[in-house]
Amino acid sequence: MTSDPLTDQLNFLKEIDRLKSIVRASPVLDRTRRENSAEHSWHLAMYALVLSDYAHSSVNINRVIKMLLIHDVVEIDAGDTPIHCARETTEQAELENRAADRIFGLLPAGQCAAFRFLWNEFETAETEDAKFAKSLDCLQPPIQNVETDGGTWNEHAVTRQQVFERYGPQIENGSATLWARASFLVRDFFSKQTL
Amino acid sequence: MTSDPLTDQLNFLKEIDRLKSIVRASPVLDRTRRENSAEHSWHLAMYALVLSDYAHSSVNINRVIKMLLIHDVVEIDAGDTPIHCARETTEQAELENRAADRIFGLLPAGQCAAFRFLWNEFETAETEDAKFAKSLDCLQPPIQNVETDGGTWNEHAVTRQQVFERYGPQIENGSATLWARASFLVRDFFSKQTL
Repeated sequence: MTSDPLTDQLNFLKEIDRLKSIVRASPVLDRTRRENSAEHSWHLAMYALVLSDYAHSSVNINRVIKMLLIHDVVEIDAGDTPIHCARETTEQAELENRAADRIFGLLPAGQCAAFRFLWNEFETAETEDAKFAKSLDCLQPPIQNVETDGGTWNEHAVTRQQVFERYGPQIENGSATLWARASFLVRDFFSKQTL
Repeated sequence: MTSDPLTDQLNFLKEIDRLKSIVRASPVLDRTRRENSAEHSWHLAMYALVLSDYAHSSVNINRVIKMLLIHDVVEIDAGDTPIHCARETTEQAELENRAADRIFGLLPAGQCAAFRFLWNEFETAETEDAKFAKSLDCLQPPIQNVETDGGTWNEHAVTRQQVFERYGPQIENGSATLWARASFLVRDFFSKQTL
């Protein structure tokens, strides 16, 4: 950190440019490549903006959008962990915590604390805002997979039951309506695979 | 549109995935490729989140973030127009208006109207919220160019004066502090080029 807030803030905005180079498992819908975590974060913020009516009435959608904008920034240091990958959870959590310390630590102290608080809230997913943010983070990958004839599910031979177990509780926790639709789409997709 | 709002909303969220394939002139900072309009929109929303203190006190930063999230969606049909390219302005505006009709038209009527209103407000840039959103949209490219030894300025042999004319009024219109810093960085960059 420098003694000038604006210099620190511009340094942070330059540092997070690296999120554009963190590649996720999920494909973009035209299947030309996998999506990166920066464009994924934009897409999720748009999910929040468009699907806000399906959140619990107490949800503050502006906080949800902010959470989704910053939720993956730690991947700059810690990398992306696909849900179908069995990486040690404690080790990953430690990596992400150290990443949050370093990256949000580039900001002036007050802003660092505010961003860190929001990121922790998303990670622990106990508030209504964080539960809805998490539900969207879990909703987008199955939507992308269904639209790309299975996407990452094919690569990992993922079953319908595994999709339900891995995404269901978190999506439903944020919105029963969105889980009702997602579970229908997933069930429909897998039923066609066995014909 | 269908008779079911959620189906329309999911179709819109699938359609805008195409923004990930609209390539802009500006490079990502590691210079491996040019950035796309989806990750650019995420970056600008982060600019708003981080630099909100430099906006006029009447600015609603949540509306600014929403504007920046949707501002480039029309490029799916109309393409990106680099600021240093002399494309016919009226023709481009018509293309973008038709794109806004089609793409926001995928949403349920009330949401379509709200998104279209917000997009028009950004385009006309008369409100304090839109002026600040526009200033950030004009601030990020010179920051990226300075950080990449000139970036797109080299390709088009852009002069310091042209940068000042093309970005200055809009950045200053949103924030005198941000323009003071940007103009310093641009001046410093070009002064080193002539040594």
